[in-house]
Amino acid sequence: MANGDIVLGANQYGKAECRLVRITRDTAVHEIEDLNVTSQLRGDFEACHTEGDNSQVVATDTQKNTVYAYAKEHGIGSPEKFLLTLGQHFVDDFAWVSGGRWEAQQYAWERITADGKPHDHSFVRKGQETRTAVVQIDGDETYVVAGLTDLTVLKSTGSEFHGFPRDRYTTLQGTDDRILATALTAWWRYAPTDTAIADLDFNALYESIKAVLLETFSAVHSLALQQTLFAMGKAVLEAFPDVAELKFSMPNKHHFLVDLSPFGLDNPNEVFFAADRTYGLIQATVQREGASEAPQAWATIPGFC
Amino acid sequence: MANGDIVLGANQYGKAECRLVRITRDTAVHEIEDLNVTSQLRGDFEACHTEGDNSQVVATDTQKNTVYAYAKEHGIGSPEKFLLTLGQHFVDDFAWVSGGRWEAQQYAWERITADGKPHDHSFVRKGQETRTAVVQIDGDETYVVAGLTDLTVLKSTGSEFHGFPRDRYTTLQGTDDRILATALTAWWRYAPTDTAIADLDFNALYESIKAVLLETFSAVHSLALQQTLFAMGKAVLEAFPDVAELKFSMPNKHHFLVDLSPFGLDNPNEVFFAADRTYGLIQATVQREGASEAPQAWATIPGFC
Amino acid sequence: MANGDIVLGANQYGKAECRLVRITRDTAVHEIEDLNVTSQLRGDFEACHTEGDNSQVVATDTQKNTVYAYAKEHGIGSPEKFLLTLGQHFVDDFAWVSGGRWEAQQYAWERITADGKPHDHSFVRKGQETRTAVVQIDGDETYVVAGLTDLTVLKSTGSEFHGFPRDRYTTLQGTDDRILATALTAWWRYAPTDTAIADLDFNALYESIKAVLLETFSAVHSLALQQTLFAMGKAVLEAFPDVAELKFSMPNKHHFLVDLSPFGLDNPNEVFFAADRTYGLIQATVQREGASEAPQAWATIPGFC
Amino acid sequence: MANGDIVLGANQYGKAECRLVRITRDTAVHEIEDLNVTSQLRGDFEACHTEGDNSQVVATDTQKNTVYAYAKEHGIGSPEKFLLTLGQHFVDDFAWVSGGRWEAQQYAWERITADGKPHDHSFVRKGQETRTAVVQIDGDETYVVAGLTDLTVLKSTGSEFHGFPRDRYTTLQGTDDRILATALTAWWRYAPTDTAIADLDFNALYESIKAVLLETFSAVHSLALQQTLFAMGKAVLEAFPDVAELKFSMPNKHHFLVDLSPFGLDNPNEVFFAADRTYGLIQATVQREGASEAPQAWATIPGFC
Repeated sequence: MANGDIVLGANQYGKAECRLVRITRDTAVHEIEDLNVTSQLRGDFEACHTEGDNSQVVATDTQKNTVYAYAKEHGIGSPEKFLLTLGQHFVDDFAWVSGGRWEAQQYAWERITADGKPHDHSFVRKGQETRTAVVQIDGDETYVVAGLTDLTVLKSTGSEFHGFPRDRYTTLQGTDDRILATALTAWWRYAPTDTAIADLDFNALYESIKAVLLETFSAVHSLALQQTLFAMGKAVLEAFPDVAELKFSMPNKHHFLVDLSPFGLDNPNEVFFAADRTYGLIQATVQREGASEAPQAWATIPGFC
Repeated sequence: MANGDIVLGANQYGKAECRLVRITRDTAVHEIEDLNVTSQLRGDFEACHTEGDNSQVVATDTQKNTVYAYAKEHGIGSPEKFLLTLGQHFVDDFAWVSGGRWEAQQYAWERITADGKPHDHSFVRKGQETRTAVVQIDGDETYVVAGLTDLTVLKSTGSEFHGFPRDRYTTLQGTDDRILATALTAWWRYAPTDTAIADLDFNALYESIKAVLLETFSAVHSLALQQTLFAMGKAVLEAFPDVAELKFSMPNKHHFLVDLSPFGLDNPNEVFFAADRTYGLIQATVQREGASEAPQAWATIPGFC
Repeated sequence: MANGDIVLGANQYGKAECRLVRITRDTAVHEIEDLNVTSQLRGDFEACHTEGDNSQVVATDTQKNTVYAYAKEHGIGSPEKFLLTLGQHFVDDFAWVSGGRWEAQQYAWERITADGKPHDHSFVRKGQETRTAVVQIDGDETYVVAGLTDLTVLKSTGSEFHGFPRDRYTTLQGTDDRILATALTAWWRYAPTDTAIADLDFNALYESIKAVLLETFSAVHSLALQQTLFAMGKAVLEAFPDVAELKFSMPNKHHFLVDLSPFGLDNPNEVFFAADRTYGLIQATVQREGASEAPQAWATIPGFC
Repeated sequence: MANGDIVLGANQYGKAECRLVRITRDTAVHEIEDLNVTSQLRGDFEACHTEGDNSQVVATDTQKNTVYAYAKEHGIGSPEKFLLTLGQHFVDDFAWVSGGRWEAQQYAWERITADGKPHDHSFVRKGQETRTAVVQIDGDETYVVAGLTDLTVLKSTGSEFHGFPRDRYTTLQGTDDRILATALTAWWRYAPTDTAIADLDFNALYESIKAVLLETFSAVHSLALQQTLFAMGKAVLEAFPDVAELKFSMPNKHHFLVDLSPFGLDNPNEVFFAADRTYGLIQATVQREGASEAPQAWATIPGFC
């Protein structure tokens, strides 16, 4: 393998983590949108790598400026819609830009209650999960993957784990009642059949999908975290035809029952030690049989199989 | 200053960050309490430092075991109450332990909604502020300082800053309309006059004080973050006679208005860049005139003046 | 896309972040190896997901036990070698395990100097970059990708950036002298032609490749971070025939020259503000022309294109 | 306690975490100084808090500008010297500023080796401990407290722990051979008797004190982490007459011997699990007998007793 010229392979570049807060203040009742936006371009950037020729390098500073200018010119609406508009601009306006990757995290805020009613312009950060979105354009293809991360959930009962194989290195005992907890990361790919992707109501879909994920986590009597994961994916696919597939990453956040017997105390699933590391890590894809796959849509989503 | 024997000064030791989850499951409707507990003892521990004599060193492992055993034997109730009970045990049961410091963070959870009602045993972490408590015992004195950290709030208008002095190094222009945002850390010291401190309803007080802090942040038309801070402290002291004083640490999380004029766009307080560092940092105490001070209560609260 | 059964797609599971410290103490001069190991299996785990049938689920706890037992039975040697041995065990010993992913971070330590010489058993954590390794087995294929992360480097001169295209959103001025700084993440895939992959001297290769990366960063007079990146990859491929390709992720850690002119001071590239966010982000692959690609080797490396 | 007016207590404000990189480029061999500077003022700021009157509020933005301008005008030299100069400016130039607190972290860099010799202007971040300094001015008093944080050290033998008292909650067994590891935070207060404090060679002192701390950690056969801590403080005080006292915070980073007996393996102190939480936490002061104390110097050092 040691012969042959050395060449540039796949590449992308841009400006990362543009912290963007957009206030809508058309009336006295303000709205807030709070995002962290990354823009990266793909295309013909070989001369920059091999010769330091920047004549086609849309500066990362320019990409950042465009993010803020577009927030004014086009508004946000939803992270998915904002990224679609932003990405299309770069692909359309620079001949050598064939595609790219645009990502956002969004942080939710809620109004502070004052004098018994929601305040017009004072907000407290909700602080629960972070909403995520990745838009990729690759020539004529556009991929939209939405998701959330760090949604921490726990069931204090309704979870078992037993029946696993035993080998020389197995010491774990099965249990028919344990705490099940995870900090959910989920991604789902939108692929509507009846509408243009840009016409989806991304905000409404996000809230509904989050609700289904939470409700299914609650409802499943779990024999394995894998089973809970699959049920959550299945429930979303059944309820939302515009979702083609989901990927989940679920740490099994172990809550170990503390052995209180040395102190003459029983512990009927009441007192737990919540461990940091090590932790289980369950990752899987749930999809529709026979549906077309889109590996390119997932290529840069961190850490999934 | 270089002569004289070298001696041990103030010291404390113990077990830090015992992650403790307590499930109350007397009925099918479970309750969850989620804490991070640190126990540290003070007293006669000189021989350990100077000679490695551990005969009076209550092992940090023993302190950890006691945390978990007490969670079973006494329940939690509130972080303040739990720490008071825990601390009193060490002071009462070991002759050479004259006091100590016991700290907890508490993480809030809320029930997941399933089938339109709150689920019995499935929870999602609320994820907003972290509740904090520090109990110190020093001989006959007991100090209870409660608080919260990382409560991120923002006003999209109703904040000005101008009229400050100008010197050679001043470039900032005053403004009569800016975003005001902070990640609030607040601590308050309980000192009831009519009741024993252990009889306070710490959970109800916590919720009420948090509500007053949020409401006052909203209500104040702010000429300086310092003014908002003082008003928040004043409102709490006026409403809660059992609170003796408060200390605040408020980063001024700058939201810089983006200059869109190079792109032919105006920006009437709509598009902001949210900066990480550098940030303003405002810290102050608000107290009752003539009230007795308690420097020992504050000595180990991180970073305050 | 809404019809069709809902099925399980790609999946993997295991135990993450097993913190493993291995002391070799055959003589009075101890050696330390400090790793963070993740083991994940792939194969036929469908019944667990769809029915909660754990009869083929090698418990994540068993995987953890195996990590620690193998550290005793086989030693570490290098993260790559340890993961190869570990992974082969799971594939060989469980019929339904067809492959998996094994990852490690390694933290370097150096001996403390005491009495003018390196101490036998006292160490200080080196604290520079983290060494990384990912081994994947997929049927008969074995992929070894090694790397490093958070190697922070800076040139105080010898870096220019100009000649980029200008559009409506461009405000950046070119410069012929700037600070260039990055926190390097690099991954390289080993694909030896003359030896079995397990016979590579991974530790010696790691140190040599790190040295080439650092030296090339220093030597290149940079017209763009992309140019530096490509030169670094090229230098490694030229020097190490057993490396098939590299992927880099390089944040452009901006150091902004502070405008001191309002204070009557010039600033000839002396005083800089080091920004956190936003930052440039440059990612690219460097490879040998015509070499066979191995997308599966890279599928789970976080965040690359 | 509920009566009395509500008043402002102790307070300070300023600009935090000014990331400052200073390049000295008088010759082709550049030097780099990399700091994180916080400036906070104390004095008469009551009207700002109570009325929003900013006429005495030296803007935090002005404080930031001054940090960068002073880096140009006066250079850095050492964090202590830089903070002394900076602080004196605010106290001298604003009548109502009676004191303040100035803090810095410093990050060390080393030259990259290229062509077998240290490069003129290319650096790699050393990445070990962070150097720290806090200067406080209070009227005529000036306090300089220097230190370091996150210096992670480990002994693979030469550490015992036994002989501790046993009560109902004690389960720990004593050991005569364990791993001892900590991430050292140390602070020391300079109080020279023969020289003005500003004339100390802070950089040389820092390197020498760090060396003594490391060497003493290595040399002590430890019966308790407390014993190691005290010996480290004693060694510094004996060697450096300009140091008046030290405070240490030492997490006992537990490395648990893994029980391999279920797998038919012994484990003679070879394979360990490095735990994150819970951890021991040992904090103590070491000082000269009869020396004057300086509680004000320590009031804002986080987390100490």
